This record gives sequence, structure tokens and C-alpha cells, in this order.
Amino acid sequence: MNDPTQTKFTPRGDTHAIEEGLALQPKFDADGLIPAIVTDASTGEVLMFAWMDANALALTIETSVGHFWSRSRRALWKKGEESGNVLNVVEMRVDCDQDVVWLRVRVGGDGVACHTGNRSCFYRSVPLGSAPPAMLRPTGGPPRKR
Amino acid sequence: MNDPTQTKFTPRGDTHAIEEGLALQPKFDADGLIPAIVTDASTGEVLMFAWMDANALALTIETSVGHFWSRSRRALWKKGEESGNVLNVVEMRVDCDQDVVWLRVRVGGDGVACHTGNRSCFYRSVPLGSAPPAMLRPTGGPPRKR
Repeated sequence: MNDPTQTKFTPRGDTHAIEEGLALQPKFDADGLIPAIVTDASTGEVLMFAWMDANALALTIETSVGHFWSRSRRALWKKGEESGNVLNVVEMRVDCDQDVVWLRVRVGGDGVACHTGNRSCFYRSVPLGSAPPAMLRPTGGPPRKR
Repeated sequence: MNDPTQTKFTPRGDTHAIEEGLALQPKFDADGLIPAIVTDASTGEVLMFAWMDANALALTIETSVGHFWSRSRRALWKKGEESGNVLNVVEMRVDCDQDVVWLRVRVGGDGVACHTGNRSCFYRSVPLGSAPPAMLRPTGGPPRKR
């Protein structure tokens, strides 16, 4: 994992620079990681959520292919390297605090983003309106717009 | 913050139960928190990213209104309580590992989700294809489908 001092990126400025500025100055947490939200560039469906260290973030920016830090394997993780289901990044955005990134992607290979074989990791919905414990409901795919 | 032993929810089972089962058994991290991705139910745009403790997650499920844990204020945070820009949850999903939730919402009030006054916290894109440091580009709103 990279040193959280983030030598690859511009050092963090003040709140104004972070929120209004145009210099990318990502914040990595105490473990040197930043959360990454991955959505389907066409449907807007959230496909997965993972973490990046500074190296994975830099590689993703340079190559337009999603790279992450595997917390379980403690190693750089090029998503889809074995399965072929790589994440081709159409657009990357950063949030107000520059402590989260959002990748809009097209999934390569057979289009499956989840290790379970589902297209998206978010294949179950949580019923609303009653106290937990709640029983999940399988979903049939991307949510319908409503 | 709630006790990470998650007394409100079903205890975590084995991998099969977590990935294939229909019992909600969320995983909270060492700080007792679970990440929450918030998207616009109509456009699919990612609006914000925040954290929930067990109490905030239970309140969100029970009320269909987004509640979080403010890490800076160390307190329950009903998003929009002061501004009126509450998050009315249309659908909640949970991921394969049950350690991330996704809220599809309609933003109340004037429809602004970000404290900066932007509709979404993700109002800047990161240019792809070159080595950092990168200069961000302001976006004009939700991404166009492509």
C-alpha cells in the first residue's frame, strides 16, 4: 500500500481549495485508502464499491481501467484481470471533500462486476417501513427509473 | 454511536448466508459504521456518500428517510433536518458482502444534496489518460447516458 502522504498527488489545501479548487488533492484515510463507487455508465446502476490506495488511483487515472487495493489480499487489484471483466472507465468524478471517487464504467468481458456472478454486487433490496430485522428481496437487475 | 455488536440486526452468518441469504446481516467496521452510497432515483447520479451506524441504518429502514452518523460531529445526522433537503428513500439495496448499502432517493426541499449548494457532491470530473496531478473539470450536472 502506498504511503498516505500521497506523493503522487497535490498536497491538501484549505477547505476552499478542496471544495472549489480544480487541483485534485484526494484525501486518503488512516489506512491510506479512499472509497471508490462504481456505477454502470449507461444505466446508473451501482455495480460495486471498493477501496483505492494512491497507486491504484493513479493507475486508474492513467489507464482508464479500474484498479483498487484489495484489503483482504493486501495487494494491488486490477479488477477483472483474471475474469476479463475489467472496468473501462468512461468518467471519474471526485466529491466535495475529495475523499470519495465515483467511476462510471463499462464492464468488459461478460459484463459481470460481482464475484458472485451477478452483474452488480447490489442484487438484493432491503424492505423499507418496518423495524429490522428485515428480509431481503432478490432484484431482477437494474432499478427501473421512477 | 451504536455498539458494533449490532443488536438491532441478525448476527453475521457464514459466507453463503451473507451472499445468498435473505436475512439482513450488515457488517459494521471497527468504528461501528457502514458506508452508504446515495443516488438520485431518477437519474442514477451519485449524490453523496456517507456513513451509518446501526441506529442510523435502522432509522433509515423504519422511516424511509436517510439518517447517517456524522463522523465530525460524532452524532446522529438526519440529512436535511435543517435545510429541508431530506432524502426520501425510494429503494435501499445491500451488497454481496453486506458491508455497503445503496440508497436510491428523491431529495426533498430544493433538491440540493451537497453542503456546497451543488445538487450532487460529485460536481467535478477527473481527466483520464495522463499521470497525476490532474486538474479537475466542473461538470454541468448529471452525466449524460452513453
